[in-house]
Amino acid sequence: MKPVQLQPTSLKSTLFDLATYLRQRQELVEAALDTSMPILYPEKLYEAMRYSLLAGGKRLRPILCIASCELVGGTLEMAMPTACALEMIHTMSLIHDDLPAMDNDDYRRGKLTNHKVFGERIAILAGDALWAYAFEWIASQTQGVPAEQILPVVAQVGRAIGAAGLVGGQVADLEAEGKTDTSVEALHFIHTHKTGALLEASVVSGAILAAASEIQLEHLSRYAQNIGLAFQIMDDILDITATDQELGKTAGKDLKVQKATYPSLWGLEESRYQAKQLITAAKDELELFGDQALPLLSLADFIVNRRS
Amino acid sequence: MKPVQLQPTSLKSTLFDLATYLRQRQELVEAALDTSMPILYPEKLYEAMRYSLLAGGKRLRPILCIASCELVGGTLEMAMPTACALEMIHTMSLIHDDLPAMDNDDYRRGKLTNHKVFGERIAILAGDALWAYAFEWIASQTQGVPAEQILPVVAQVGRAIGAAGLVGGQVADLEAEGKTDTSVEALHFIHTHKTGALLEASVVSGAILAAASEIQLEHLSRYAQNIGLAFQIMDDILDITATDQELGKTAGKDLKVQKATYPSLWGLEESRYQAKQLITAAKDELELFGDQALPLLSLADFIVNRRS
Repeated sequence: MKPVQLQPTSLKSTLFDLATYLRQRQELVEAALDTSMPILYPEKLYEAMRYSLLAGGKRLRPILCIASCELVGGTLEMAMPTACALEMIHTMSLIHDDLPAMDNDDYRRGKLTNHKVFGERIAILAGDALWAYAFEWIASQTQGVPAEQILPVVAQVGRAIGAAGLVGGQVADLEAEGKTDTSVEALHFIHTHKTGALLEASVVSGAILAAASEIQLEHLSRYAQNIGLAFQIMDDILDITATDQELGKTAGKDLKVQKATYPSLWGLEESRYQAKQLITAAKDELELFGDQALPLLSLADFIVNRRS
Repeated sequence: MKPVQLQPTSLKSTLFDLATYLRQRQELVEAALDTSMPILYPEKLYEAMRYSLLAGGKRLRPILCIASCELVGGTLEMAMPTACALEMIHTMSLIHDDLPAMDNDDYRRGKLTNHKVFGERIAILAGDALWAYAFEWIASQTQGVPAEQILPVVAQVGRAIGAAGLVGGQVADLEAEGKTDTSVEALHFIHTHKTGALLEASVVSGAILAAASEIQLEHLSRYAQNIGLAFQIMDDILDITATDQELGKTAGKDLKVQKATYPSLWGLEESRYQAKQLITAAKDELELFGDQALPLLSLADFIVNRRS
């Protein structure tokens, strides 16, 4: 795993060792993901699921879920099955995104894409199975949380990744491809759905599991919406400024397919400024939590300062 | 919708008007499915989802779920969101099954397949979105059932369609293609997973929603396993004996791709006999329910006597 590059932008964040926090959480999530996915018959299917699920990555969604759960007074154990499910879902969306019929990508997280290794049929089915498993995992593995708090998590996650969320954003993205007149509003729709909805569900589901109040959920939702958009702006910036090796996938793809991005609409400087503004707004939403919010505050900084 | 062809094989079943029962239930399910799926932005995605979801079909899984819920003392209303979710899931599995990378089919339920109308990308994503929506729908729409009874339904359905169920069966099926030495055991594995698991989940989930006892669940599970296998044997028989028009899809496909089927291993006569034996065994499991079980008893007969 690459070392976390940390450039804290606020004094508060310097008091918190995000690098250690992230490494520890990543290790716990890796172990839980590893345990969640045995290899049974038919082995090729499980191997394909494990191949992409355990291919590294920042594990940002699980970590947001856990941090949010702990912030509201819950425990890591309460959040872990949902945290793993969020990564299963994210992994599945990458597998299907990379398919020949979709973005036709050869590399992801520095490794060959799933269909390059296992073939297109298995890649489609491994994605499908990961998605089903995510819901099974939340419903069957969550311990120490009343069923009335787990059920809205299932609903929230389901909504975040379907037509009203991730998949809807992907379709809007496909439809915008090759168009030269994409507006900022259209780009916002794409990204608040394609990336934002699952990030928001990650934060909100952790809080729901810990029985957060309505007001806490509202603030955490807005925090997540802001970091979600900042995350996507940074993705667009990194696609231009980072190398293939840094990203672990093909850089410069957006330019090649003439895709509308924030830098293409705003320029690099303004895009960086907007991302930073969103991070400031995100952090403002956490004021009611005091110092308890240090992990989420630092994660917000991390998103705008990351190099991959 | 084609009229239901009814050939009751037992005296008991003749006392029950299955044709009317099925028609009434089908109409209710159609209406609920129609309401469940609005058309929002991006329209093409929702249209693709609706196209396949509302393309007719027997609606066997929703009807089994409702019948099982009512048998144990629950209501149609308690079961309907799960019933709809089961049909969303079944529809999704057909969309992905028909993809160019999979079976590459042009027709399904007498209409062009999803990717033939909407293109491969949208077909993949419409399937993904249907699957997510199914879980959202169960978790957000089920009324009058305690959360502790809804959560195991989510787990049961998730398990039934992932690597341990439907998708696992599909992969085993792909791996058996072109092989001339497939055993009856291997064929059983394929079908108990590819078709059987979701049929079983349909019956069992309905009963769980109605707070069935462990003993009731065990009998209903075995009923469902038996009708599931009989259903698949009949599918194999119909692939040989029925026309394209009767099936609404390409007949004779198994022979063409040299796929192992029950008739290819057992012959037609023995396959018919085995299917009937399984139906008898299925019906025996329902003895403890008395006459309340007439719908499920008749549905068992229907499966072995259907013409499409």
